[in-house]
Order: sequence, then C-alpha cells, then structure tokens
Amino acid sequence: MEPGQSSIKLDWNDPLYQEAVVDLLGALAYGELQAFERLAADASMAPDFGNRASIAEMSVAEFGHYKLLRDRLIEIGADPAAAMGPFVDAIDGFHVSTAPADWLEGLIKAYVGDGIAADFYRYVAQYLDPQTQELVNEVCSDLGHSEFVVGAVRYAIASDPVVAGRLALWGRRLMGEVLAQSQRVAVQREALVELVLGGGGDLGDLARMFADMTDAHSERMRSLGLSP
Amino acid sequence: MEPGQSSIKLDWNDPLYQEAVVDLLGALAYGELQAFERLAADASMAPDFGNRASIAEMSVAEFGHYKLLRDRLIEIGADPAAAMGPFVDAIDGFHVSTAPADWLEGLIKAYVGDGIAADFYRYVAQYLDPQTQELVNEVCSDLGHSEFVVGAVRYAIASDPVVAGRLALWGRRLMGEVLAQSQRVAVQREALVELVLGGGGDLGDLARMFADMTDAHSERMRSLGLSP
Repeated sequence: MEPGQSSIKLDWNDPLYQEAVVDLLGALAYGELQAFERLAADASMAPDFGNRASIAEMSVAEFGHYKLLRDRLIEIGADPAAAMGPFVDAIDGFHVSTAPADWLEGLIKAYVGDGIAADFYRYVAQYLDPQTQELVNEVCSDLGHSEFVVGAVRYAIASDPVVAGRLALWGRRLMGEVLAQSQRVAVQREALVELVLGGGGDLGDLARMFADMTDAHSERMRSLGLSP
Repeated sequence: MEPGQSSIKLDWNDPLYQEAVVDLLGALAYGELQAFERLAADASMAPDFGNRASIAEMSVAEFGHYKLLRDRLIEIGADPAAAMGPFVDAIDGFHVSTAPADWLEGLIKAYVGDGIAADFYRYVAQYLDPQTQELVNEVCSDLGHSEFVVGAVRYAIASDPVVAGRLALWGRRLMGEVLAQSQRVAVQREALVELVLGGGGDLGDLARMFADMTDAHSERMRSLGLSP
C-alpha cells in the first residue's frame, strides 16, 4: 500500500471494514479474557488480603470488558470464538513469556498492561464508527484500576533499592514482548492494521504508533520510580 | 458441652455470638475468595470459549459474594484479614489436595463445591440473627451457576464410559476432603460450631449435619450420572 492511499473505508458498509472490526473486537475480547485469568491467578501471590482483593477487583473488571466485547461481536453477527481465534497464539505467547516470578512483578505487569491497553484503546477509538467507538470508550473509561500499584512499588523500592534494577528490567521485558507479539499480529492481519491506522497508513505509521506507546510506557515506569 | 445445653445465645449482644458470627463470615469470605481464584485458574482448561466464559462467570460471582461478606465484616467492626486468617490453612489445604487434573475434574469440582456451599449456607442461615441471615440468603440465592455442568459431564460419560469410574472416585475424594477440612476447623472453633448447630448441639449433631450434606452430595453425583 502506498503512503496516504486508503484501501479501507471507515464505513460499516465496507466489507473490509467489517472484517477489521471483527478482528479488532476479537483481539480485544481475547486480551481481556486472558487478562482476567492471569490477574486472578496472580492475586494468590499477594502479601495480604487488601492487595489480593485489589488485583481480584481488576481481574473481575477485565471479565466485564470481555463480556461487552463478546456481546458486541454477537450483535454484529460474528462468532466470538472465530473472531478471537487468530489472536490466541500471540496473546497466550505474551503471557507465557511474562509469567511474573513474584508479587511485585505481578503488580508491575498489571499496571503496565492496564496502561498499554488504555493507550491502545484510546488510539484506535478515534478511527471507529460511532457505535464501535462508544463500546471501546466504555471499556477504556473503566480501565485505570491499577493506581494502587504505584504506592506499593515505590514502597518496595524504598525498602530495598536493589529491587529497582530488577523491576526496571522487567518493565522493559514486558514492553518488548507487547511489541514483539503486536508485530507478529500485524504482519498477519492487514485489514486490522489499516483500521488501527485510520484507513491509510504505512509501516512507518505503524512503527510511529508503537513508538508513541513506548514513550507512554516509559512515562509510567518513571511514575513508579523505575528507570524506563 | 452437654447435649441440649446451650452456651451461646443467638443474640447480637452475646459476645460469644459476635465472635461466632465473625468466624462464620470470615470462613465464608475466604472460601469465596479462594473459589474465585481457583475457578478463574480452571477456566483456562476449558475446551472452548463458551465453557471458559461459563466458569469465568461463576468465578466472578464468587468474588461478588466475597465482597458482600467482607463488607459485612467491616460493618460490624471486624477486621476481614483477622477474621479470615484462622481458615486459610483448611481452605487452602482443600484446594491443594483437590487440584483438578483436567477440565472434567474441574467441572465436577465447580458443581460439587457450589452445591455443598449452598447446602451449608442454607443450613446455617436458619440460626442467624435477621441481618446476618439476610446476607447469607443473598449469597445463597446467587449460587447455582453450575447447572451447565450437568449436560457436559453426562455427554463426556456417554462418549467414554470408562471416564465415569474415574469421575465417581473424584467426587468421593472431593466430599472426603470437605469433611476432613471441616472436622479440622470444627475442633478449633468451638463457638462457630455452636452457632452452626443453632446454639446447642453436640458432636453427634455435628456428625448428623455432615451426614445430611453427604446425602445431598450423593444426590448431586447421581444427577451427573455418577455413582456416589
């Protein structure tokens, strides 16, 4: 595709647009379902009941998002299982290679993942038809349950400065895996990439989106007191 | 304690009653929190997205129960962590020794656990003060999300009759572990046992409650097509 040349119309009547929206909702739905399961599993590593309940609360919210996305897929006549299928390997792959070794790694993964998801949702929302946009905004507005992480991570670093180096590395690995798996998806799902980039765009635009998301990630790492 | 002789009054002004209610709510709260985490973990064994979402739905409901119970503990001036503490070993012990080896074992554990919990909630509700009773009834009325299991298990048995023997054994092991851990709690929490038995009762009454719950469990195993 040539830069600036659009092959997908942001119009519900364009079959390519419909295909891309099904892809997008499928990817987000499976991402939320996995976030639910992984966060619920991480909750058991919490040092106390308060933290355990906070992570559990996040995980329950992710399941709520999953249901919204799945129900929208059904509403537009798509099969949720078929829509999620193409993204299972990438999303499972991300989680397998970023299984937290302890509670702090789990906390940072929750915070970083929540932030990256919110960035991506906001990014993609601008190019969607009004109904899909409304759904994406609804899910997005319910993200941000992870603010409780900041204090806990700052406290852990203050108590043991050595831990900061390890957690900074962990943050870089998380973002690296997000990028690797996203690239993997991007080469396979052309219509989805076009949708995410607003109907036009080229590989450079995709790379710039990833660069913006990486900047936002670095900002979040700094807010935790970790070098990005 | 002599049979028929009551040492606890079912009255909020009796300190022994308050202590027993805190125990009860603490045990139920931790049971629900663990049920949430374990079911969420089991969801990933599901053969398809429909089943995966059904188990996830159950797990999210358990977390809702946990929050109700925890909030009630706070309302009556108790510390939820302190209230749950005494029951962590028994409930964790149950789950460690009944980790499902596959999806079918997970399904049966969800169904059997849901049923035993509902039986116990109904049993204990009859002896509580109106406010605690209302809470217990609210949680109890929201149980029963596991009916979808029946068809799946019956189908699996029909497809492979050998599996029925293994799953029947599994059901017996689940109930055996419930009884073992309950006995373990009972010898340590005298006030709780008195509350559960309605303010009086002796070891025979406790054994009869367990016998009734075992009968109900056997009935459920039969409804799955498994010999109890």
